[in-house]
Amino acid sequence: MIEHLLPEEIEKRSFEIISQELSFRGIRLPREQEMITKRVIHTSADFDYTRTLCYSKDAVAIAKELIGKGAGIVTDTNMALAGINKRLLAGFGGEAHCFMAQERVAALAKERGTTRAAVSMEMAAELTGPVIFAIGNAPTALLQLYEMIQKGSWRPAFIIGVPVGFVNVEAAKELIMETDIPYIVNRGRKGGSNVAAAICNALLYEMERK
Amino acid sequence: MIEHLLPEEIEKRSFEIISQELSFRGIRLPREQEMITKRVIHTSADFDYTRTLCYSKDAVAIAKELIGKGAGIVTDTNMALAGINKRLLAGFGGEAHCFMAQERVAALAKERGTTRAAVSMEMAAELTGPVIFAIGNAPTALLQLYEMIQKGSWRPAFIIGVPVGFVNVEAAKELIMETDIPYIVNRGRKGGSNVAAAICNALLYEMERK
Repeated sequence: MIEHLLPEEIEKRSFEIISQELSFRGIRLPREQEMITKRVIHTSADFDYTRTLCYSKDAVAIAKELIGKGAGIVTDTNMALAGINKRLLAGFGGEAHCFMAQERVAALAKERGTTRAAVSMEMAAELTGPVIFAIGNAPTALLQLYEMIQKGSWRPAFIIGVPVGFVNVEAAKELIMETDIPYIVNRGRKGGSNVAAAICNALLYEMERK
Repeated sequence: MIEHLLPEEIEKRSFEIISQELSFRGIRLPREQEMITKRVIHTSADFDYTRTLCYSKDAVAIAKELIGKGAGIVTDTNMALAGINKRLLAGFGGEAHCFMAQERVAALAKERGTTRAAVSMEMAAELTGPVIFAIGNAPTALLQLYEMIQKGSWRPAFIIGVPVGFVNVEAAKELIMETDIPYIVNRGRKGGSNVAAAICNALLYEMERK
């Protein structure tokens, strides 16, 4: 059965359904995390995320403060970059970047026998100002960030760690959660570029609302 | 535990794990559909897709034939467009398009009280040559295609119908499966731009392999 709704009503109705189903399942999300987790469910139709999304202490407040100060966002795929609301981000003075398609990145990755995603993280370290990472695809990006943090060579301001997959994905996420960098991480195999973009947009939409 | 693999080995290892788990779950995919469904699992880490992905008769062979003839692909999001391997598609003479960000589309949608996705489908009808739709987000895009097919005003060559969501998503997918247009549709609420792109890429990679 088709519901006849105006375009602007569709999203509102979707979030009503999500809220109803959460309540039906007896799930109460922490207030601070609510709109983030709900938007991830909205983008995936997957309620598993209520069990697996992990937030470090005050993660949402910290991420919003960073965006409010003009932090940049670095993604590991052009898909995530395409999904982020760059107009809203620019309104706060920030810019979104993905270095994956750069020739320099491909050349360095080949030379070192590593992934382009890993090399991309080093490019990000050359940006001025604080950087939020939104990693939806490559666990090697998280492993590279972990190594940089451990060495003390550079500190990301925030990590959205939601790569999807079967090889090193779960372990890489656990390593990020052992650092002292604030994070939103989806424990387990699930995630994706769409999830990474949804988390960024949820933060931006909440900031816009205020 | 981190597995130390070369970048080119990661994908191979991922597909091995997927195959093992399918076998462990007692799931045997039809040969024609195997690499498509597996790539969707690879992009989502979600084995539910083995139960919900629906293929019309000879869907994969038909889609490959269309791509081989230079068919274009039209998406309903820039995210799906970003995810499709456009270099491979161009090798077969095809081009990928997304009309969502066009000013003309936004103006027409506002005028008619409909979504940009619905209007985008009409833009696609102006393309020359056969068109494969890869719809990962907007059920209104599928509803618009359904209406065009019913009216006989225009016929898509193929529909990849995998929007995700809570409002009209399930119903719109069922309508597409009632038409005589060949399709790959994911029944239920799940799907996404990443899934739409993964299906396109699975077709392209299989064609490249031969």
